[in-house]
Amino acid sequence: MYLSKIASYLDADLFGADLEIVSMNELSLACATQLTFAVHKKYSKELSSSRAKAFLITQDLVEFLPLDASYIICSDVSISMAKATKLFAPKLIDFELPHAKIGDGSYIDAMARVENGAIIGSGVTVMAGAYIGSCSVVGDNTIIYPNVTLYRDCVVGSDCIIHSGTVIGADGFGFSHTKTGEHIKIYQNGNVIIEDDVEIGANCAIDRAVFNSTRIKKGTKLDNFIHIAHNCEIGEYCIFVAQTGVGGSTKLGRNCVVSGQSAFSDHLEIAPFSTFTARSGVTKSIKQSGGIYSGFPLMDHKEWRRLQGKIAKLNS
Amino acid sequence: MYLSKIASYLDADLFGADLEIVSMNELSLACATQLTFAVHKKYSKELSSSRAKAFLITQDLVEFLPLDASYIICSDVSISMAKATKLFAPKLIDFELPHAKIGDGSYIDAMARVENGAIIGSGVTVMAGAYIGSCSVVGDNTIIYPNVTLYRDCVVGSDCIIHSGTVIGADGFGFSHTKTGEHIKIYQNGNVIIEDDVEIGANCAIDRAVFNSTRIKKGTKLDNFIHIAHNCEIGEYCIFVAQTGVGGSTKLGRNCVVSGQSAFSDHLEIAPFSTFTARSGVTKSIKQSGGIYSGFPLMDHKEWRRLQGKIAKLNS
Amino acid sequence: MYLSKIASYLDADLFGADLEIVSMNELSLACATQLTFAVHKKYSKELSSSRAKAFLITQDLVEFLPLDASYIICSDVSISMAKATKLFAPKLIDFELPHAKIGDGSYIDAMARVENGAIIGSGVTVMAGAYIGSCSVVGDNTIIYPNVTLYRDCVVGSDCIIHSGTVIGADGFGFSHTKTGEHIKIYQNGNVIIEDDVEIGANCAIDRAVFNSTRIKKGTKLDNFIHIAHNCEIGEYCIFVAQTGVGGSTKLGRNCVVSGQSAFSDHLEIAPFSTFTARSGVTKSIKQSGGIYSGFPLMDHKEWRRLQGKIAKLNS
Repeated sequence: MYLSKIASYLDADLFGADLEIVSMNELSLACATQLTFAVHKKYSKELSSSRAKAFLITQDLVEFLPLDASYIICSDVSISMAKATKLFAPKLIDFELPHAKIGDGSYIDAMARVENGAIIGSGVTVMAGAYIGSCSVVGDNTIIYPNVTLYRDCVVGSDCIIHSGTVIGADGFGFSHTKTGEHIKIYQNGNVIIEDDVEIGANCAIDRAVFNSTRIKKGTKLDNFIHIAHNCEIGEYCIFVAQTGVGGSTKLGRNCVVSGQSAFSDHLEIAPFSTFTARSGVTKSIKQSGGIYSGFPLMDHKEWRRLQGKIAKLNS
Repeated sequence: MYLSKIASYLDADLFGADLEIVSMNELSLACATQLTFAVHKKYSKELSSSRAKAFLITQDLVEFLPLDASYIICSDVSISMAKATKLFAPKLIDFELPHAKIGDGSYIDAMARVENGAIIGSGVTVMAGAYIGSCSVVGDNTIIYPNVTLYRDCVVGSDCIIHSGTVIGADGFGFSHTKTGEHIKIYQNGNVIIEDDVEIGANCAIDRAVFNSTRIKKGTKLDNFIHIAHNCEIGEYCIFVAQTGVGGSTKLGRNCVVSGQSAFSDHLEIAPFSTFTARSGVTKSIKQSGGIYSGFPLMDHKEWRRLQGKIAKLNS
Repeated sequence: MYLSKIASYLDADLFGADLEIVSMNELSLACATQLTFAVHKKYSKELSSSRAKAFLITQDLVEFLPLDASYIICSDVSISMAKATKLFAPKLIDFELPHAKIGDGSYIDAMARVENGAIIGSGVTVMAGAYIGSCSVVGDNTIIYPNVTLYRDCVVGSDCIIHSGTVIGADGFGFSHTKTGEHIKIYQNGNVIIEDDVEIGANCAIDRAVFNSTRIKKGTKLDNFIHIAHNCEIGEYCIFVAQTGVGGSTKLGRNCVVSGQSAFSDHLEIAPFSTFTARSGVTKSIKQSGGIYSGFPLMDHKEWRRLQGKIAKLNS
């Protein structure tokens, strides 16, 4: 899509060359064929060193752009960015794609839907009521239980087990907010990648990324009702007990253990081999690996136990 | 249905005219063709001023009834009310209704079920595995993702997005309890109304009202795993982050922001523009708009932060 | 399956007679045709009195076995047990079974899947998108709403109502852990039994037992988003409000009331008629019936209320 069309859609002016744009991405990751954006002066350094050539930007940030940049001047970059994502949203279902490819020895129930463009490995089981979206990929020997939904463009590795009711690739929860309190959808044009040997329990929800991928790495096991927000990265061999949630863009290292009803804020980085006892509420990144944590606000598990004793004494 | 039939079903005596009854409703809302009920003397004033003409009632409350009232004397009104709701429960699926009406340019997947009597607007997408119940309505341009369930008689507005696994219109959680500890189902004969431009994430559950409607107003956005109980009213442009729950009949004003894992008790009224940080537990109504709250028990956010500091010091 | 085959699969040595084994079970429950296991010396007494004849065991526990026992020596019993469970996992779908039996007056939607070997009572409604697994049983007059999933070998009683999105019989969350941090699946070869007159709300998950049964007893009512882990036993006439979870093998007595967002650790025993207010976190068994509890850590409800007052005063 040409920048001129995007500018026209946003009812805004384009400056510089009318480049062809393939997709959108955040500033730190955008490449030369992607449209990016900056919403605040704090990104001025990132702007000048960006590999991107096309920007949504406010007038006051133009001076920080690379010399050869094309840019669309927006009065509210956040809103314009949200509106622009709609232009890059793929079709819900793409009937023009070739029929799905199904590997040897796979069983696709007649009551399952596998959309065009999907690729199913060998030895896969897709049970009744399951949905595999356009261009999604399911690796060898994976089991997709009844009534699982895999949105388009998502990837599930080999030897995975996805239990019923689980939804992989629904839109991340992203909106820009107008001054009058309305919420403008940021289309979530990324995907979800589930690596090999992952088991996901019943009625989980793993949201697709706004750009790029939400990723669950090899060997991780999720219990029921796990919420993984957009752009998270869950390391290898993690364990998530039921009813836990992870906020957007948070990254956990390998072999973390997260007990029931715990939750993580967005944009955190959690060191590998961290353990969280039940109902931990994690709001800050953790740099040192191997710790055991509890409580909300979060603290060292031993400290939390000691504190509970102190609190109980208030009643005596 | 005639009162005499209801009395007979309840094995109770009817006094007054044998009126034809269309439905049931709570005392404050019931009109002349609805059966209502009073379970306690505290409703004596409401009884005498009620527009209703038909009552389930205990002997001791008869004196407060309007003069022309018809009434059925019950030894346990709560139990009789529950039993009576069963008589008004519509069929699960109504095959005798005319075929669903589908608007221009709508796509209904061959693996979706749209029951008779449903009305689908134009430009709607109903994907595989989705279920649209009898007499339900879906507005223009709305997207119903795979494996969504919309129970009968419910309404989804225009330009809505309903993500996979979400259930709209399942029965509210309502029972009357016998003295020996059994639970008698109160049939939930109301519905759900989702207004325009609402987005609902994956695996949410919005329960139908016992009488009347559960309502989610225009422009509100729900993340994944949101529980909205029967008879709630969620105002315009609210934001609900994942894994939050709202108890029955609670009403939130417009532009409330509810962070992850928060919850509200039933029968609350929450002022508009209220913000609740993660894991807020709201058990009292909030009258002043624009506040920021935290904790369980709930308090002002700044107070909560200060309190956490004080609590942490107990350990030193 | 013969022990020799199991030993070979585990690449381990068999001692004693090559018995034919029907299934696996835990030490305290295993009978003569079941393979069992002991992972620790603390089970030495149970070992010597076990009715089982076939064991996975470490060398140092051999001395405690019954004299006529057959046993397979494992270096890591926990891992070998997990691997062995795979040998006993039934087929996901068993096409060789006879067609499902459907009772008189039952309605099975053409878009529902009822696998071979299932038995559906009379007057049952199975709506579009519902899935009834191989050999599962659904009792008379039960309603299975759209997009419910009932895994194979599970039982739902008579007069039950199962709301949309609920998953009954997905695998319990059980793994053995290698020294290098991988998780080896313990196949969950048990089932779920839902007794009569149970109502289960939308998007619940009741996991199948690892061995034997997860059980929900007569007349219990679950709201939405209830997580019941493997091998739980929920007593008669319990009430679970939304977003609560129960850890593995925990047993609740009859008429317990569990308010929203509460949770129970695994392996607890909870006395009948216990009440838990919202967000209770239960980590210890409760022996005395009729108590009311709150908080996490859990305490008597009145004590908790008093404590909240004391905590609030810290800020003054």
